Amino acid sequence: MLNFEFKNPTKILFGKGEIAKISNEIPKDAKILMIYGGGSIKKNGVYDQVKEALKDHDLHEFGGVPANPEYEVLVNALNFIKENKINYLLAVGGGSVIDGVKFLSAAANYEGEPWEILKKPVRTFEGEGMPFGTILTLPATGSEMNSGYVISRRETNEKLSSGGPGLFPQFSVLDPEVIRSIPKNQIANGIADAYTHVLEQYMTAPSSADLQERIAESILISLQNAAPKVMSDEFDYDAAGNFMWCCTMALNGLIQKGVITDWAVHAMGHELTAYYGIDHARTLAVVAPSHYRYNFDAKKGKLAQYAERVWGITEGSTEEKAEQAIVKLEEFFHSLQIQTKLSDYTQDFAGTAERVEKAFTERNWLGLGENKNLTPQDAFKIVEMSY
Amino acid sequence: MLNFEFKNPTKILFGKGEIAKISNEIPKDAKILMIYGGGSIKKNGVYDQVKEALKDHDLHEFGGVPANPEYEVLVNALNFIKENKINYLLAVGGGSVIDGVKFLSAAANYEGEPWEILKKPVRTFEGEGMPFGTILTLPATGSEMNSGYVISRRETNEKLSSGGPGLFPQFSVLDPEVIRSIPKNQIANGIADAYTHVLEQYMTAPSSADLQERIAESILISLQNAAPKVMSDEFDYDAAGNFMWCCTMALNGLIQKGVITDWAVHAMGHELTAYYGIDHARTLAVVAPSHYRYNFDAKKGKLAQYAERVWGITEGSTEEKAEQAIVKLEEFFHSLQIQTKLSDYTQDFAGTAERVEKAFTERNWLGLGENKNLTPQDAFKIVEMSY
Repeated sequence: MLNFEFKNPTKILFGKGEIAKISNEIPKDAKILMIYGGGSIKKNGVYDQVKEALKDHDLHEFGGVPANPEYEVLVNALNFIKENKINYLLAVGGGSVIDGVKFLSAAANYEGEPWEILKKPVRTFEGEGMPFGTILTLPATGSEMNSGYVISRRETNEKLSSGGPGLFPQFSVLDPEVIRSIPKNQIANGIADAYTHVLEQYMTAPSSADLQERIAESILISLQNAAPKVMSDEFDYDAAGNFMWCCTMALNGLIQKGVITDWAVHAMGHELTAYYGIDHARTLAVVAPSHYRYNFDAKKGKLAQYAERVWGITEGSTEEKAEQAIVKLEEFFHSLQIQTKLSDYTQDFAGTAERVEKAFTERNWLGLGENKNLTPQDAFKIVEMSY
Repeated sequence: MLNFEFKNPTKILFGKGEIAKISNEIPKDAKILMIYGGGSIKKNGVYDQVKEALKDHDLHEFGGVPANPEYEVLVNALNFIKENKINYLLAVGGGSVIDGVKFLSAAANYEGEPWEILKKPVRTFEGEGMPFGTILTLPATGSEMNSGYVISRRETNEKLSSGGPGLFPQFSVLDPEVIRSIPKNQIANGIADAYTHVLEQYMTAPSSADLQERIAESILISLQNAAPKVMSDEFDYDAAGNFMWCCTMALNGLIQKGVITDWAVHAMGHELTAYYGIDHARTLAVVAPSHYRYNFDAKKGKLAQYAERVWGITEGSTEEKAEQAIVKLEEFFHSLQIQTKLSDYTQDFAGTAERVEKAFTERNWLGLGENKNLTPQDAFKIVEMSY
């Protein structure tokens, strides 16, 4: 097991009705800015619950943060924060809103041009951000219990990630009731996103971190169990709760401790979103199977373990089980109505592999995969396999 | 899934050599009291590593905290803290030393007679304790990543527990190298203690908290896998690391969230330690099988699930699998050279069940078990079954 440090101070308030408790989590004299996205919270009752819970607080609002939170919009929010001397932020939304609020938390306590925070090497914001809490309305990214975030800037076509130990939410409310009103395609995206988060921290060369691997497998199995129930038209509170908690646990740092991690699927997937606007989670479903086939020798031990422990496949050689594992993964994505080939999303895919290779070559290339030994040429082949 | 709140702010520093980092975790101007037990840390090198790491800090020492930390000894430490204006505590030891330091952390910031903290209802210390860190030398209790503790007072024959949100360690160092020098009977106790901690949070009526149950099962399997390796004479760093991390994860709050918990085995086991001085972990091994047999109908669903998922037993009815589960549990304790009958530890056991029943009857009885419906008479029968 590799040495590791782990600290996650976020307080989770989990369950039906927990939004009412946030008034105890935020100082009485705080000047709060509630930040949200496109307004779905006004339809599902969350907005009203927040207003009621904070009726004795000084509460301001900033709506309209888009998916893939954009710098331009966030700078408007930052100006509002500074002009109105806001000192507490409340994200009400999914991963995009929470990521945006993390950026604002850092930027509010940063002297100088806010974009500089993101241009520094990843995860180097060392200060304390402005305190903030979150109310999660779309389980997927895990942003509600970690300190990382991704921000896009349209004018320069950049999508940059950052984070830091002072950017954990002080609290996050996870009320499974919010899942009632989420469209099924977004639930499917959430499942696929969380599932792939686990795979990125698990589907590597074998490790000796037995407990972390088993917890990763537990999250995968639990997501699989919850999937058909949360995709069904009948609301199932317990399935919704398991799905929600799995998404959080998939990326709160726990399963990545003591092991090597991959994240190549995300790196290639981000390109597909940039070129074609394909939903983030769906790009992961396109890239992951090809990535595992291309790196079969390095990953076959873990693929076979996944086949055995997660899918109960006990027959066959290591190679046979590993091959079945990839088929099972594809079938799981298909069960969510998520397609796993680039050509399922666009007929305009010719040249994508070349474009990815070129983009990676032009950047400050650090290598992809758990051993950082994949080259832009490898990415070319993986993306080409995913057509 | 039940509603829950979860917050665990302890920073874990895991791995070989991590003790050297504690100088960065403690303020440079802190006046530190290092607290330890019988002196084994002077033989295994931990004492020297701490002295070296903190050579530029103002470091004081207080040794001699015994197993089942005693109030009388801790009051001496408390006087030292007040007289010398100590403002940071460092526990270097196992669960007893860490528990003692948590009491000191609370008492140092409490006006009035320190014993009052423990006489209040359990877990109600609401203030912030004096900041403290820990260096774990004996994996077992999980105290290094939670905020609870147990203190004994010889003069009144009391053993009381307390805790509170302000009593988490600021950091805990988990270096698996410490396991090299732990006597095998203490390693066995640590495995049995952590294993039973998981069972107390898992072996209840069925729940709908799928992920929590699977993580509990992961810890049980991982402890089983590590057990023969850490009990062997040849040191295995990875097995030691898995054992150590399992002990921490068994009682850091995660697997108890959203589920009902039992803790009847601990309540009855504590009595056996009080009467006969049997090691805490071994009393759990004595009581647990009888407890599960006595409450077979309520627990058979979970027992069968444990048989299937943890031991791979897929044949037979629910009842048959549940019965095999208890046998497997007994065999696991035996594999650690831990006996599971009271008569294996004392020939003087006659009247123990009566004594437990009387003791429970005389106390402010709240009921035992996950539904708090077990009476002192039930405890009589369970203890009698364990002769």
